[in-house]
Amino acid sequence: MKKVSEHDSVNEMREILSADGITNLFDRFENQNGRCPFCTGGISCQLCSNGPCRIKKGADRGACGIDADGMAMRNFLLKNIMGTATYTYHAKEVAKTLKATIAGKTAFKITDEAKLKELASMFGIADTDLGGAFLDLIKTDSDEVLKSVELLAPASRIKVWKELGILPGGPQEEMMDALSSCLTNVDGDYVSLAKKAMRLGISTIYGSQIPLELGQDILFGTPMPHEVNTDLGIIDPDYVNIVPNGHEPFIGAAIIETAHTDLVQQKARDAGAKGLRVIGSIETGQELIQRFEVDDVFVGFTGNWISIEPALATGGIDLFLMDMNCSPPAMGEYQDKYNTTLLSVSKLVSVPGMKGQKVYMPEEVKAQAEELIDMAIENFKARKGKPTHPVSKTQKAIAGISIEACLSVLGGSLDPLLDVIKNGTIKGVVAVVSCTSLKNGPQDSLTVAVAKELIKRDILVVAAGCGNAALQVAGLETPEAKELAGDGLKAVCEKLGIPPVLSFGTCTDTGRIAMLVTAVADALGVDPSDLPVAVTAPEYMEQKATIDAVFAVAFGLYTHVSPIPPVTGADRLVNLLTEDVEGLTGGKIAVGDDPVEIVDGIEAHINKKRAKLGI
Amino acid sequence: MKKVSEHDSVNEMREILSADGITNLFDRFENQNGRCPFCTGGISCQLCSNGPCRIKKGADRGACGIDADGMAMRNFLLKNIMGTATYTYHAKEVAKTLKATIAGKTAFKITDEAKLKELASMFGIADTDLGGAFLDLIKTDSDEVLKSVELLAPASRIKVWKELGILPGGPQEEMMDALSSCLTNVDGDYVSLAKKAMRLGISTIYGSQIPLELGQDILFGTPMPHEVNTDLGIIDPDYVNIVPNGHEPFIGAAIIETAHTDLVQQKARDAGAKGLRVIGSIETGQELIQRFEVDDVFVGFTGNWISIEPALATGGIDLFLMDMNCSPPAMGEYQDKYNTTLLSVSKLVSVPGMKGQKVYMPEEVKAQAEELIDMAIENFKARKGKPTHPVSKTQKAIAGISIEACLSVLGGSLDPLLDVIKNGTIKGVVAVVSCTSLKNGPQDSLTVAVAKELIKRDILVVAAGCGNAALQVAGLETPEAKELAGDGLKAVCEKLGIPPVLSFGTCTDTGRIAMLVTAVADALGVDPSDLPVAVTAPEYMEQKATIDAVFAVAFGLYTHVSPIPPVTGADRLVNLLTEDVEGLTGGKIAVGDDPVEIVDGIEAHINKKRAKLGI
Repeated sequence: MKKVSEHDSVNEMREILSADGITNLFDRFENQNGRCPFCTGGISCQLCSNGPCRIKKGADRGACGIDADGMAMRNFLLKNIMGTATYTYHAKEVAKTLKATIAGKTAFKITDEAKLKELASMFGIADTDLGGAFLDLIKTDSDEVLKSVELLAPASRIKVWKELGILPGGPQEEMMDALSSCLTNVDGDYVSLAKKAMRLGISTIYGSQIPLELGQDILFGTPMPHEVNTDLGIIDPDYVNIVPNGHEPFIGAAIIETAHTDLVQQKARDAGAKGLRVIGSIETGQELIQRFEVDDVFVGFTGNWISIEPALATGGIDLFLMDMNCSPPAMGEYQDKYNTTLLSVSKLVSVPGMKGQKVYMPEEVKAQAEELIDMAIENFKARKGKPTHPVSKTQKAIAGISIEACLSVLGGSLDPLLDVIKNGTIKGVVAVVSCTSLKNGPQDSLTVAVAKELIKRDILVVAAGCGNAALQVAGLETPEAKELAGDGLKAVCEKLGIPPVLSFGTCTDTGRIAMLVTAVADALGVDPSDLPVAVTAPEYMEQKATIDAVFAVAFGLYTHVSPIPPVTGADRLVNLLTEDVEGLTGGKIAVGDDPVEIVDGIEAHINKKRAKLGI
Repeated sequence: MKKVSEHDSVNEMREILSADGITNLFDRFENQNGRCPFCTGGISCQLCSNGPCRIKKGADRGACGIDADGMAMRNFLLKNIMGTATYTYHAKEVAKTLKATIAGKTAFKITDEAKLKELASMFGIADTDLGGAFLDLIKTDSDEVLKSVELLAPASRIKVWKELGILPGGPQEEMMDALSSCLTNVDGDYVSLAKKAMRLGISTIYGSQIPLELGQDILFGTPMPHEVNTDLGIIDPDYVNIVPNGHEPFIGAAIIETAHTDLVQQKARDAGAKGLRVIGSIETGQELIQRFEVDDVFVGFTGNWISIEPALATGGIDLFLMDMNCSPPAMGEYQDKYNTTLLSVSKLVSVPGMKGQKVYMPEEVKAQAEELIDMAIENFKARKGKPTHPVSKTQKAIAGISIEACLSVLGGSLDPLLDVIKNGTIKGVVAVVSCTSLKNGPQDSLTVAVAKELIKRDILVVAAGCGNAALQVAGLETPEAKELAGDGLKAVCEKLGIPPVLSFGTCTDTGRIAMLVTAVADALGVDPSDLPVAVTAPEYMEQKATIDAVFAVAFGLYTHVSPIPPVTGADRLVNLLTEDVEGLTGGKIAVGDDPVEIVDGIEAHINKKRAKLGI
């Protein structure tokens, strides 16, 4: 059977899915072949009743009068806004959890007290007010300037953004402004719309992503390096298995805590299981492995979103808990077929056929965790003895990198890193911030190929998002992976005891990476756009990725994306995004599906920046 | 040449546009013929990189797994959210203007002090805090219940909404929640998505629309009936003509005030004009004619959005001021061709080629008005002597109906209205809340035909939105139009001295109509869904209309819409919206493009409700 994934485990489970004749992404993707060229090019509009419209021969404008560039950029901005919404929803949940926890109203504790104090001091508020301050950031008026941009962004960037009129307010209001601009007959100018996208991107990173990650650090600990287990082989059907899936760590963290009690393990054994385990899935799992040690109760991380249906098909998952995003909507019939229970723990998530909804409430999380554990044990009782399809493959990885972790590894200062960059031992640093998609080949194949090509050329990789999972499961986040690196990078890995690809967490850690870039730029006394760094999203999938990419361009970074975004029907827009914007922000979009060519482009950019810096 | 509009003036100007070979809606609409059946049916998705996807033979799900119903409802909800965003943006501008005006920081004054006091008292706050209270409504947490719903919605409705889990918080957070739900792999369940749409609709009406209209009443006066002039004939090229266009009355109101000074008129005469005039266009114009008397300076209202390009083609508009929405994006070249200046007065609006942007600032509105007037006079100097194409047709209408106006006409109580409904002189009341579209025939033709059919059958019409403009320009909002009404309605019109179609204002007045319905329901001691009333949108166009329609269904009303919304590719969704939802809210969607059949459906519904009430 055709290979659908970089990972053997997923290819193996795809055979099960096919044999069972159950709906699955791989078949559905194939069934969609013969895709619409208008929609692919971004020049189809369904907004108003005078449409739908398409830019085509004899029709260079939609009925309303919008041109190809305006239409494609408006469509793209709409996607960006959806990404902002989801990040901001997550940020709000973190802020509320933090607020309630500081007030002693949850079962969580403040794990990184120093970070709480440091941030409160930076905001000029009492420690107890930080959760509220994060909520205020989210709701900041779009006619004002977001305080966290002023506090955290490089001064040189703030200047650029001010000149472009894209110094933003808070994400909720920026969302409203951008959405209103996308209405029929409001903003028909692709340049104006593109600037609004960048404005929104900046607001998202500083108003939502950074506060949410720092808030999660305060609650659950700042990531520090440790070894974890990944891939589908960590699912052992002989245990009661609970899989928190999505992007938020709350319910998962509470269950991990509760599952470590003898009472719970005994209950599971009484039900005939070997015990009860918690297994992280996609970004919720990534948040958890970044911060929690793995052991025989919290056993690790399955993989990214394309691995969800394959994971369920093992038949070994008792309770699949769905927060915020991503839970593919066709899994309803997996429940009977694979003896699992799908449960939404977010008011956002609904999968047709799921067993119900138990919305996460910070103040009630302990009781919720207990109830969910009981539910999983009941599911185990019902599935006991039914056929399962365990896979054997597991893969170790080093998780838990953060700026603090870098400083710790480097002995308290960025200088050792800067030195090896300056002397050319490492040419530069590239962030692989990506999802996973079938559009440009098997799951994770391009992501893995790009990362391998980068490290081979002595470019250090920091990874976040579902693309990070790709590299973890592919074995690139182990110290041993240094063997795949060029001599310079290999020497650095050996000296510091690090892998050539560093796990920076989830897609929300784009903000954390921006802070790392800011720290490096500050240390060198230059603007981020002057650094020998770049971003690549080799398999971007959804709308959160699009706002990350737009931010990276606003931040001044060379930003490779694949598959090609739906803008190719709009020549001037393509030119703006891939060429002209560089004159405005220093950043730009690059495209391409060939790993060598992708890295050629990145390396040329890095060399240009090195030359400009005189290093 | 083929008739493109119900209105002779527009047909006449279309000939000019065609002769000039300039881009225009009528040609562009034709050029889009051969529309995509997938997009038309709502079963095309462009959200993620695994797509674009279409539901088709051999592919009953998108790549992610979403089915036709989920896909179509998600597409529809996305449009709804855009409508909410725009209404809420407008509401925020009103709240800020009100706040600044109460603080004495603008050139505006509090015109309806009694309403200010009444609302402040209802909210339990000081008069000075009402602007802030409106801002608080907008930002209310979606985990809380919106205070204005509790204060203003019928208790019977609140009960229904609570049971359905759709009792909302504030529009900004509800927007964020709904948008996040639309992300790939978040909410794939059409029923859940439809409930989210209704929840958002309720939040929009009570959190944005009602506060914004009441705020505008406080600022500019509560609408009371008076005669106005409409249609393109009110544009006299011998004057300096300023046309505020969009949905917000601020800049227009300030210019009307300033234009009434001798200084301004003298300046205009010095430039060789007969004077300077302000002419309202679409909803900004509608807001203005609802509240301001017309005279030789503020001369009236041109028409709805399809009339914009024709109005500009008269060559008699010096300054076209674009707020919030709707300004079609292809008008850039009209500036040279028709000697006009396009200027955005909103940070949202951008039309390629426009002369610039001067964003409305409450505190600076007087100086802004003066500067804009000077700009218009300069434009006049430049266009003097160049060819113009004035049209002759003007049409009188009675504008300025509000609940207070109704009570005033009725002698202080709704009883006279209730009596004629109870005794069958009038069968019921229908709200025509619509845009205008070419999709179901010439501009406004279906709207006018439906309204005529309704009044012929003794059904009183209250109108709002661009559809209201259709009926004004068509002459149905005059006392003389009673001749087109059935005997019962005609007698009522004669007795009260009212037209058979009452001008309730703009699309934002959907909220005001909801309050009228609430008042009638309360007076009869029943729920809105029990009343012999209905809603029709014979020519809905954009995304604001979609959220209004969704609210109407949540409010328990029979809601006719045309053209058919893009949901027809989704059988279960169509069934939910047109049938099953009635069991949940009492409301439902009806479709159809034939005026007699549309009104047959409405009348049958009204008769059913009359029978149930025993009247």
